[in-house]
Amino acid sequence: MKLNFKGERVMAVVAHPDDAELFCAGTLARAKADGAAIAVCVLCRGDKGQPSQRVANLTAVRRKEAAAAARLLGAQLFFGEHRDGTLIDGVAQRRKLIEMFRKFKPTLVLAHTLEDYHPDHRAASLLAEAASWFCAARGHKTRSPAMESPPALWWMDTVNMAGFLPGFYVDITDHVGLKTQMLACHRSQLIRGQDADFSPLAELMRLQMRTRGLQAGVEAAEAFRAHCVFKRARAW
Amino acid sequence: MKLNFKGERVMAVVAHPDDAELFCAGTLARAKADGAAIAVCVLCRGDKGQPSQRVANLTAVRRKEAAAAARLLGAQLFFGEHRDGTLIDGVAQRRKLIEMFRKFKPTLVLAHTLEDYHPDHRAASLLAEAASWFCAARGHKTRSPAMESPPALWWMDTVNMAGFLPGFYVDITDHVGLKTQMLACHRSQLIRGQDADFSPLAELMRLQMRTRGLQAGVEAAEAFRAHCVFKRARAW
Amino acid sequence: MKLNFKGERVMAVVAHPDDAELFCAGTLARAKADGAAIAVCVLCRGDKGQPSQRVANLTAVRRKEAAAAARLLGAQLFFGEHRDGTLIDGVAQRRKLIEMFRKFKPTLVLAHTLEDYHPDHRAASLLAEAASWFCAARGHKTRSPAMESPPALWWMDTVNMAGFLPGFYVDITDHVGLKTQMLACHRSQLIRGQDADFSPLAELMRLQMRTRGLQAGVEAAEAFRAHCVFKRARAW
Amino acid sequence: MKLNFKGERVMAVVAHPDDAELFCAGTLARAKADGAAIAVCVLCRGDKGQPSQRVANLTAVRRKEAAAAARLLGAQLFFGEHRDGTLIDGVAQRRKLIEMFRKFKPTLVLAHTLEDYHPDHRAASLLAEAASWFCAARGHKTRSPAMESPPALWWMDTVNMAGFLPGFYVDITDHVGLKTQMLACHRSQLIRGQDADFSPLAELMRLQMRTRGLQAGVEAAEAFRAHCVFKRARAW
Amino acid sequence: MKLNFKGERVMAVVAHPDDAELFCAGTLARAKADGAAIAVCVLCRGDKGQPSQRVANLTAVRRKEAAAAARLLGAQLFFGEHRDGTLIDGVAQRRKLIEMFRKFKPTLVLAHTLEDYHPDHRAASLLAEAASWFCAARGHKTRSPAMESPPALWWMDTVNMAGFLPGFYVDITDHVGLKTQMLACHRSQLIRGQDADFSPLAELMRLQMRTRGLQAGVEAAEAFRAHCVFKRARAW
Amino acid sequence: MKLNFKGERVMAVVAHPDDAELFCAGTLARAKADGAAIAVCVLCRGDKGQPSQRVANLTAVRRKEAAAAARLLGAQLFFGEHRDGTLIDGVAQRRKLIEMFRKFKPTLVLAHTLEDYHPDHRAASLLAEAASWFCAARGHKTRSPAMESPPALWWMDTVNMAGFLPGFYVDITDHVGLKTQMLACHRSQLIRGQDADFSPLAELMRLQMRTRGLQAGVEAAEAFRAHCVFKRARAW
Repeated sequence: MKLNFKGERVMAVVAHPDDAELFCAGTLARAKADGAAIAVCVLCRGDKGQPSQRVANLTAVRRKEAAAAARLLGAQLFFGEHRDGTLIDGVAQRRKLIEMFRKFKPTLVLAHTLEDYHPDHRAASLLAEAASWFCAARGHKTRSPAMESPPALWWMDTVNMAGFLPGFYVDITDHVGLKTQMLACHRSQLIRGQDADFSPLAELMRLQMRTRGLQAGVEAAEAFRAHCVFKRARAW
Repeated sequence: MKLNFKGERVMAVVAHPDDAELFCAGTLARAKADGAAIAVCVLCRGDKGQPSQRVANLTAVRRKEAAAAARLLGAQLFFGEHRDGTLIDGVAQRRKLIEMFRKFKPTLVLAHTLEDYHPDHRAASLLAEAASWFCAARGHKTRSPAMESPPALWWMDTVNMAGFLPGFYVDITDHVGLKTQMLACHRSQLIRGQDADFSPLAELMRLQMRTRGLQAGVEAAEAFRAHCVFKRARAW
Repeated sequence: MKLNFKGERVMAVVAHPDDAELFCAGTLARAKADGAAIAVCVLCRGDKGQPSQRVANLTAVRRKEAAAAARLLGAQLFFGEHRDGTLIDGVAQRRKLIEMFRKFKPTLVLAHTLEDYHPDHRAASLLAEAASWFCAARGHKTRSPAMESPPALWWMDTVNMAGFLPGFYVDITDHVGLKTQMLACHRSQLIRGQDADFSPLAELMRLQMRTRGLQAGVEAAEAFRAHCVFKRARAW
Repeated sequence: MKLNFKGERVMAVVAHPDDAELFCAGTLARAKADGAAIAVCVLCRGDKGQPSQRVANLTAVRRKEAAAAARLLGAQLFFGEHRDGTLIDGVAQRRKLIEMFRKFKPTLVLAHTLEDYHPDHRAASLLAEAASWFCAARGHKTRSPAMESPPALWWMDTVNMAGFLPGFYVDITDHVGLKTQMLACHRSQLIRGQDADFSPLAELMRLQMRTRGLQAGVEAAEAFRAHCVFKRARAW
Repeated sequence: MKLNFKGERVMAVVAHPDDAELFCAGTLARAKADGAAIAVCVLCRGDKGQPSQRVANLTAVRRKEAAAAARLLGAQLFFGEHRDGTLIDGVAQRRKLIEMFRKFKPTLVLAHTLEDYHPDHRAASLLAEAASWFCAARGHKTRSPAMESPPALWWMDTVNMAGFLPGFYVDITDHVGLKTQMLACHRSQLIRGQDADFSPLAELMRLQMRTRGLQAGVEAAEAFRAHCVFKRARAW
Repeated sequence: MKLNFKGERVMAVVAHPDDAELFCAGTLARAKADGAAIAVCVLCRGDKGQPSQRVANLTAVRRKEAAAAARLLGAQLFFGEHRDGTLIDGVAQRRKLIEMFRKFKPTLVLAHTLEDYHPDHRAASLLAEAASWFCAARGHKTRSPAMESPPALWWMDTVNMAGFLPGFYVDITDHVGLKTQMLACHRSQLIRGQDADFSPLAELMRLQMRTRGLQAGVEAAEAFRAHCVFKRARAW
């Protein structure tokens, strides 16, 4: 039994330029292969993810890295342009994300879970939740018209799987290569692997998709939980 | 064994003009019948709950609808006047609610739960929690003097009962008629029943009070959880 | 996005003859329509579900009712023949269920959840969990050979939805008729609707599938949670 | 707002002769004062609660201690006569408890919670849960006829409050004296206060009722959670 | 088996001037005795903790009380200078705390838990969590250089132990005297003991450390939970 | 900050001959190195863990494998001799384990958690919990005298980390070699790596200790939760 993403419009809402790679790139690749339209919305610039060997123009560098990864995937890319470490669930931030939703018209949103380790991830989680409701409320005016109805919303796994109880798994065995290539685009972060304030991302990703796979009986998997509330829950 | 609300001063703190009807109107009616004083505080204007057939002057219309419903109940009505979708747990918002608490002097507050589906509901939940503590702190100055002690606080059910684990139930069998009439005042929202971004409220309310009733062995019920923290918990 | 049950072999493991109707008949009907093979295993005889108007030969009567319902569904029927109120998770009981698994070879098992209200339901839950592991262990000898690998396992909703937090929903809109007809076969239980120790089953079922539907944006639904443990979790 | 137990028939189901004193004697005393009928069912003999200074005939001694305490309270006393450390949720054990339920006809049962520290407490919890359903099932034959309908069921606090999240509190301020006198009847256990395998019960009880009281704004309280499942949940 | 704090740098991050005394002073005293460096960061002024007998210059008074208590402990003291009841998890508030972290360089942070009863406690919890990550991110510029790596983070017990499930306990038997003396410094709060909006702190503290001690088999203890997320979790 | 196991007597209570290797061998090795006495109690024979290439005399083979692993560790070995798949929490099973406790006199017991995937693991969990209380009750007679007081009890991680939320981690970086060698003794199970009803144990162990290590900032770790109930909780 496999979920089929054909006809869906899947949008990942992440805090930083390399988060989609870690938590949902395999699922996005699979959805793409099924015929879904894909978008990634990166809310923050990644401007504070500075390696010990300083990278000049980090914001621009990371934007290019994200663009390269999105190109590999064939995904439309949205940038929230918020500064790292400043993301909050405020009215202006919501409005910006609502407008991006209305432009892409997702039927399924993948977002950070509230248990995650980073304040920007948790703010992104709250923003995605808020926007997933307001995007369809015609009382909320933005440049684009309101969507017909709210998208479904799934919470993504955490860094290192800490504290995340999966509700279900998506088999990404056939998309490990693409996910890995996408991560490889983020060179500015991969060089942080030996810094004491960070971790080797490639190993972390490999361990995580393999562990989730082993838990679910496949080579590699990504884990999610459905957000079962009014108008965001779906019957499959 | 029935709870008796005689002598209580019960205040519902809700986000939008029709929320009290859905989640606690039966309990308010029962408390009223027991001899309690009742208030409803509606924090937002309801200005974004626009039906597909556009309603002009929606804020004014909804204010009248809320007033009509409160009249049926015999409840004092407070308006927070916040715009829909902008409610946050901030200092100014707290101060406004603290002052309303100090005017009405509730002994029991009914508020949205943090699991609820709508950002305004969650902000209302946080605000009610904050005000339930600060209202009795004489260091927090507002126009009215501090209350003697904090009120009890109960969390209300969610829309559609999604994700809410009841701690106890209130029998509202004798108050179904009034609750139903109160909802009927909210015509601007009832006409949204067929909109894809909303639901038929009358059916939703009927199903919910009947389901909660069936769970608790009566015709109709409303579900709550007590907020068991410092000074808000009570021994019955 | 719909789950497709084609090629699956779905087995519901329930305690009493009418439990499959209440909790998963719509899903079974949908899986059948997708081309899955269906079985229902009724662990207890239903011999204690005596209406106030006494039914003679209750065990035989209920067996016929279950058979009639299974015929409507096109499901293979297994009987555990345990007496009501005596079901426990013991070695003999496991062996019997393991053998039934090995005969039918399910790829997906639907079973009562541990939060359910009835001791037999909880014992059935433990038995299904145990059998879902042991059925594939060749060290566990029964008449039939061990299965190749363990089936997936989903927990079903509770009576009245009490205490059950859904992980996902299955749309049964097109199968409400069959589910309803199947329940109608259980006449010995429907006449208990006015007994103080029981409830009107038809209303209960209608409310439950409609509420789960309303929660998930469809006419009618059934709610489940995947059992995410070793060899029973799946990647979709 | 106070709960009123008038007209109720309250039965505490505990594992050992001094458990009712620790967890619910204040509530029983209050219910008695309200006009309720009270029973205590002690499932085990207390035969293994041997102090370091050995007590001869411990079973008989503890039976007398329990009887003395019940006399103070004015409660009917039932003995399960199971040996300490052997209590399980089995068919024979259920039948015995069902018959006691049918004799006393409780409308409210107070029982150990599943989080409690002692295997006998957990078995007592399961037995009370099972009997609270089966007592009203006329298919379950015992000497006495089936009850009309199942009683409500509340879970009691744990020893030391470890791991127990209260759902609500009962004010026992006026019944501290009686609760204390009742505990004083259990001399064979009070002398275990300095044994390394046990604790000073009087201090433990005093701390617990005072802490629960401080949490709930009264001098002394006992904490409970309602078991919100089919036919055992109530609307107050 | 005892934890040894030698070589650690322990920083308590609390909302109000007397919070460290209630929740972690015993642990700080023990860490100090083990040879750890200790700091207390008080985020708010305590300016709203006004007794019914009004204290003039409350902010200054409480600052002196906190300083006296810190002196007894031998702890470095940091003041956030926020007004009571206004603390939020904002960018400016984070920056201030990050700088304090970078000055003291904690290896272990003790902070309020999110379940706590007071909005300032919850804001302090979020701030400590955010700062525990950002303090080591060299992209986040403050006056002092970034720390090498994030500190460990433990959540402290709540007032009255309401809703807090301990993960482990720290034995403070040898430090009860100092903890008690430290609380005694907070005279402006001790005189609130009879106010209806507050509680007698000395009794509350005594009950709490004794109860936690009784739960953990020692005279007196404090309870904590480790925050098991990326870079804040530790292997002991 | 490291836990020091010096002077402890640590006993792992596991269901099958290779379970200690997977879940706690690193911690046992570290405790041994600290000077603790170590025991492993294997409750079942491992007689049903039959590879697809059948192993004759599987019980004897696995006993030898367990003995070889224990020898590497320097641990005393106890065998429960129960047949696989039949383990239950019964009176006779408890008595046998109580006697083993009384022989070894553990101060710390490591046991399977109740969330684990295998019925024998869950029964072992219940048995260890029961024996950890009864071992110190002098009313419970076995050949050896009662222990002075109950041991501490920690729950171990699950297979594949499914559903286990760690409370804390133990650094086993220096003991990876021994843990790996110990697993290598279990040749009868390692050859099941390609069977569809099982998994490659060596990879599974490597992934798990590395993932737990990455979560906790070390090369390799094992995860636990303390059982915080009466007399089994400890203050560190």
